[in-house]
Amino acid sequence: MLQITEDKVSSWLPVRDENTYKNKMGHVLCVGGNANMGGAIILSASAALYAGAGLVTVASAPENVHALHARIPEAMFTDMYELNTLSEYIQKADVIVLGPGLGLSDRSLTVFKQVLNTINKDQWLIIDGDAITHFVNEKETLQIQSKNIVFTPHLGEWQRMTNIKPPADHIKENQTQKNNLQATVILKKGRSEIYIEDEIWQNIAGNPSMATGGMGDILTGIIASFLGQFDNKKQAILSALYVHSATANKLAKTHYTTLPTTIINELPIFIKSLNKQEKNLLQ
Amino acid sequence: MLQITEDKVSSWLPVRDENTYKNKMGHVLCVGGNANMGGAIILSASAALYAGAGLVTVASAPENVHALHARIPEAMFTDMYELNTLSEYIQKADVIVLGPGLGLSDRSLTVFKQVLNTINKDQWLIIDGDAITHFVNEKETLQIQSKNIVFTPHLGEWQRMTNIKPPADHIKENQTQKNNLQATVILKKGRSEIYIEDEIWQNIAGNPSMATGGMGDILTGIIASFLGQFDNKKQAILSALYVHSATANKLAKTHYTTLPTTIINELPIFIKSLNKQEKNLLQ
Amino acid sequence: MLQITEDKVSSWLPVRDENTYKNKMGHVLCVGGNANMGGAIILSASAALYAGAGLVTVASAPENVHALHARIPEAMFTDMYELNTLSEYIQKADVIVLGPGLGLSDRSLTVFKQVLNTINKDQWLIIDGDAITHFVNEKETLQIQSKNIVFTPHLGEWQRMTNIKPPADHIKENQTQKNNLQATVILKKGRSEIYIEDEIWQNIAGNPSMATGGMGDILTGIIASFLGQFDNKKQAILSALYVHSATANKLAKTHYTTLPTTIINELPIFIKSLNKQEKNLLQ
Amino acid sequence: MLQITEDKVSSWLPVRDENTYKNKMGHVLCVGGNANMGGAIILSASAALYAGAGLVTVASAPENVHALHARIPEAMFTDMYELNTLSEYIQKADVIVLGPGLGLSDRSLTVFKQVLNTINKDQWLIIDGDAITHFVNEKETLQIQSKNIVFTPHLGEWQRMTNIKPPADHIKENQTQKNNLQATVILKKGRSEIYIEDEIWQNIAGNPSMATGGMGDILTGIIASFLGQFDNKKQAILSALYVHSATANKLAKTHYTTLPTTIINELPIFIKSLNKQEKNLLQ
Repeated sequence: MLQITEDKVSSWLPVRDENTYKNKMGHVLCVGGNANMGGAIILSASAALYAGAGLVTVASAPENVHALHARIPEAMFTDMYELNTLSEYIQKADVIVLGPGLGLSDRSLTVFKQVLNTINKDQWLIIDGDAITHFVNEKETLQIQSKNIVFTPHLGEWQRMTNIKPPADHIKENQTQKNNLQATVILKKGRSEIYIEDEIWQNIAGNPSMATGGMGDILTGIIASFLGQFDNKKQAILSALYVHSATANKLAKTHYTTLPTTIINELPIFIKSLNKQEKNLLQ
Repeated sequence: MLQITEDKVSSWLPVRDENTYKNKMGHVLCVGGNANMGGAIILSASAALYAGAGLVTVASAPENVHALHARIPEAMFTDMYELNTLSEYIQKADVIVLGPGLGLSDRSLTVFKQVLNTINKDQWLIIDGDAITHFVNEKETLQIQSKNIVFTPHLGEWQRMTNIKPPADHIKENQTQKNNLQATVILKKGRSEIYIEDEIWQNIAGNPSMATGGMGDILTGIIASFLGQFDNKKQAILSALYVHSATANKLAKTHYTTLPTTIINELPIFIKSLNKQEKNLLQ
Repeated sequence: MLQITEDKVSSWLPVRDENTYKNKMGHVLCVGGNANMGGAIILSASAALYAGAGLVTVASAPENVHALHARIPEAMFTDMYELNTLSEYIQKADVIVLGPGLGLSDRSLTVFKQVLNTINKDQWLIIDGDAITHFVNEKETLQIQSKNIVFTPHLGEWQRMTNIKPPADHIKENQTQKNNLQATVILKKGRSEIYIEDEIWQNIAGNPSMATGGMGDILTGIIASFLGQFDNKKQAILSALYVHSATANKLAKTHYTTLPTTIINELPIFIKSLNKQEKNLLQ
Repeated sequence: MLQITEDKVSSWLPVRDENTYKNKMGHVLCVGGNANMGGAIILSASAALYAGAGLVTVASAPENVHALHARIPEAMFTDMYELNTLSEYIQKADVIVLGPGLGLSDRSLTVFKQVLNTINKDQWLIIDGDAITHFVNEKETLQIQSKNIVFTPHLGEWQRMTNIKPPADHIKENQTQKNNLQATVILKKGRSEIYIEDEIWQNIAGNPSMATGGMGDILTGIIASFLGQFDNKKQAILSALYVHSATANKLAKTHYTTLPTTIINELPIFIKSLNKQEKNLLQ
């Protein structure tokens, strides 16, 4: 397997144009967060913003707007259950995260289907968490327009998607399944594996301080953010995996647990430290 | 009495597996927080998260979801008055905190009973604050399934539980009462005493900067967090008491008052400083 | 006029007992904050907490509970328009702040009257902002039980209370009016004057970074907090005035504007730096 | 074009009177923030406060009050759809920001018209974002009382206002259009241009870390804040442009993205560092 290293990520990070503006840095739409799990989609959106996305909109259960704006007034909001409005926001987005805290109710299934039916072939879609479960349940009848799908299953979800049982080593079989899905697969585990195009990459080890809820939610946000900013989408995805773990590794030197919100706050500083190529535009 | 010392706690803190994940770090459910005292359960849940719990869910009055997610989007939420849903969350939890800000209304009594009737014998239950009052009022008719109960009374509550009057020295009688309860008792006072198994432990002195509301709420969260992470439950409880006071002692060197939220923010750093055994997994 | 100096405040700050607890540090009730000015009462309560109050409860318009707990989960909450419940909270309090953001509607007048009719003669009451206007309008018919009233008018409010016109120097007349009121008067201006018992004190100069809304709200909270903690109430009030300005002066060395929330966060550190008498109880 | 430099801004920043008070530092009213874009007006108001405004009121959709007070309890709030109350707040303001997150619905148009019909000739009005679109749609029939209008269009909005097409260099034509508008025009782009009185100024370069949503919202707040504090209004506007970009430039040395909320927090410190003339009033 190929290894994601600091040097590679440093060379991949975008050199932004001096006069770039928000519309060039990607519009990320995060869809999820029911009445019980609103925090998940707030974490995803926050990570997208702090990793540099130009615009971030959250589509969520209506009660989540208060906490969202208390945490990130930079984000826009729409009620995900208003399907027509949701479609309008989908059409404006470059990258869509679908799933964090979405829930498994019939109502959330309707949201799931609306996203898949509205998205066009050029938009990127990250399918995570409860959206993976909906995908498993509905896959016989789904027709997804996007050619740019990223799945982010943990081992249990991957098993339900493919009937491959953890924890044995199934690299070849994983790749076959990935090819059947016509998607990128990020298999989350101690050392996450990324099945992308014809390559298999392994992320650096994370660390035990990351064993806390919401860690997967912020990963979706960082991936979406980088997909909106990088021209090379493979490099975007691989860099996102690295930045997620490496920021936590940095913090773990002084923190017993590295909470998602702690990592989010560190992202602008950590990414800057890696982004050596971008010439310093300031006097 | 046995003394909890820094050296002991350093040797007790868990050495986490390099590839551990959130489900191994304990699922804590915090039940409490009525319409007037929602902050209490937010404090308990925040402390649980910042002390390293894998997953934290809050069951509370419905209006508390906004402030909860504004403070800790990492947590999940459920309306504690929806008793069927509450039971589902109870069944998923490893450790339950019951009582901070719960209130003394008939409605809160119903919640109290639902927890006690639903919990199974292997789950840990921390009974605090208003739940202690409900316990005193209802103890003749209660049948608690769990064999793993921790009470956290202050002296006044302990008196109501036992008819022992403060502040005289009643160590022997306290132990007798503790045996009758078939529970662990944390008697909160200047130097808190822990009656656990056949032992009596004394916590280090706290300090006057801790004389502020919510201090007991965060103690419940730290205890629950450690119970979910440690194999040795006695060490978990004793370490939690120490970490709570010692974090405040550290902060009190520079702070006239050490508010619960200030202590919460310091927990990941302070616990890391104690956790010398855990080998550094980072390059 | 007598001058409040750093040395005096250092000698006045309480030496807390090593085993003190929250009930000895004062229970402050902050009443105010209508639907438009909820922030004012949140600021008052936050300052009370960060200056060391043992317990803080906010009685306010019901919609303010969300922001309150998002900022200070340590506080308790009650709807100020539920007058019976309000009376119960009044009876539990040691010190009451009445007025920040209260508003001038008939409904707020009802709250104002309920506080004045319920308070007993030993409780302390700080009358600020809109409550001063209600006082002026209603003073012919008011019968206040408390013997411990503190008014905090700015010059315009003082004029309406007394018909003394600013900005001329009216020290003698101010004192006469203060005696008629049978209260302590804190006359807020560039160098605030405190008319207390038979003495007149002058606060150190503030600084222009304090010229921002909410500055008076946090002063009420600090006064209330110190009244709950100090045995000597004159020293409590004078120390509160000093700490308020001196914390802002410290911050103004690096901040163009010193917002109330910035001052609040600094209070525990600044008060600690003054509190040289309190022996360090930590190893 | 004239260049805004650090030296000029340092010499322009106000030397505040030692005994100044909030009413002399300007009352800013921020109107905007519908149910989807409440964060925009919170950002504008926060920037106004952190740049030193004496008083800040937000007129917005009613649901935004919770997040507003969770972030800035220093601000007051009113429901912008209650037009009579809105008019009362307009009459109290020195400077009004109209547009961030306002939306394009009929309801928001009513708010837009109410502001323009109520404002008097001496008040300052900043027309931004969706209010520019309303202006374009309604300009044939509008009669604006204020003689002190500032437009803050980006290039696309300027095109819709004037039919000048980006990105060609149209300085002369821009000035003609500006004269027709009888207003100040801040044309937002990589190096923003300010058309004010008979002069054309160019802001220092920003940097790519600013390419994120909400950046224009905080610019409106800083402009409004300085208009309320400076006697020389041209210097106020030019200084606001500089402070906005230069604060981001400072942060960009260590941050890959400089989020609006990050810039807001830095404003008091950065402005202080520039404000060398104001004599230090503290011992």
